[in-house]
Amino acid sequence: MASDPIAELVQLFARLPGIGERTAARLAYFVLGTDPHYAKSLAQALEHLHERVRRCELCGNYGSRARCEVCLDPRRESRVLCVVARVQDLNAIERAGGFRGRYHVLHGLLAPLEGVGPEQLKVNDLIARIGSEGVEEIIVATPLSVDGEATSMYLAQVLKPTGVHLTRIASGVPHGGDLEFTDQITLGRAFDGRREL
Amino acid sequence: MASDPIAELVQLFARLPGIGERTAARLAYFVLGTDPHYAKSLAQALEHLHERVRRCELCGNYGSRARCEVCLDPRRESRVLCVVARVQDLNAIERAGGFRGRYHVLHGLLAPLEGVGPEQLKVNDLIARIGSEGVEEIIVATPLSVDGEATSMYLAQVLKPTGVHLTRIASGVPHGGDLEFTDQITLGRAFDGRREL
Repeated sequence: MASDPIAELVQLFARLPGIGERTAARLAYFVLGTDPHYAKSLAQALEHLHERVRRCELCGNYGSRARCEVCLDPRRESRVLCVVARVQDLNAIERAGGFRGRYHVLHGLLAPLEGVGPEQLKVNDLIARIGSEGVEEIIVATPLSVDGEATSMYLAQVLKPTGVHLTRIASGVPHGGDLEFTDQITLGRAFDGRREL
Repeated sequence: MASDPIAELVQLFARLPGIGERTAARLAYFVLGTDPHYAKSLAQALEHLHERVRRCELCGNYGSRARCEVCLDPRRESRVLCVVARVQDLNAIERAGGFRGRYHVLHGLLAPLEGVGPEQLKVNDLIARIGSEGVEEIIVATPLSVDGEATSMYLAQVLKPTGVHLTRIASGVPHGGDLEFTDQITLGRAFDGRREL
């Protein structure tokens, strides 16, 4: 055959994080062996994913409109901004429920070797928000990993001149830990114990 | 929003075997964060999967035509049939390379409680092939699990009257296996199936 549809699907599945060749094959055969309606549904969910999911023009959170639910919520405190690397981290903080401010999603961390610099993370947008929204405190909630810390230190450097009150979430989050998978109590403590940058 | 496209994708991913809610979320955010071309490619690979992949009308193997590559190969021995539960098992045997006969894929195992009986496994098609293709030996290569053994015993029952030579793949200590760490059932089978040296 010109192109093998099963091999093609296996290859594509294998590009997902944590999915090796063997697991990819198992998934492909599962899809093939199950009701064709499932493959169609998954195809449709993927086909228009990037068109249906919009990035909030203000904070970068995912949503269906120009501005996300958090930014549109008038009860949210606009003077406190929490900077996160990924939308998953924002969701984790929302699930913990203690934070009532707004967010800024970097959609990544500084990684100069991979070509991710301040421009890719739209740090200028963050600086611009301080003035336009009257931000008084910025809580840096990038992960407690090497890249997360480096990004935090970089942000401290460029944000200090603006005079904004800069804080970093406390080290209640375990070293090398992932915000998405941190339990609510630990996340809450990390917010309570934030220190001056 | 009326329906959340991310939540939808997470739910669909979570239906894949071995993928829990958290992994599904991680996959969904990965797809969202990566080049949209990837989501489109995966969507396309899934959209027409069931139309592009055909089951061989003879043996049930996957392929792009009415008959599969194995059944179309004139060098394959038609007098020996190997019965397997899944196409993945057929592929594993093909990779091993020693078998030169043809196959019969059941696409499942007997599971009366889940409504999988002889009709679902198309056992009649298998019986019909014995006469139409001059099959002399049938090697039952269903897995050595409870369901695989039950299916094997059922096949023995219905195939014996046809007079075909019926065999079952050997069960024993695997290649490189350590006797100390081999389970009791496997060891018992290894003793029962001992051969003359």
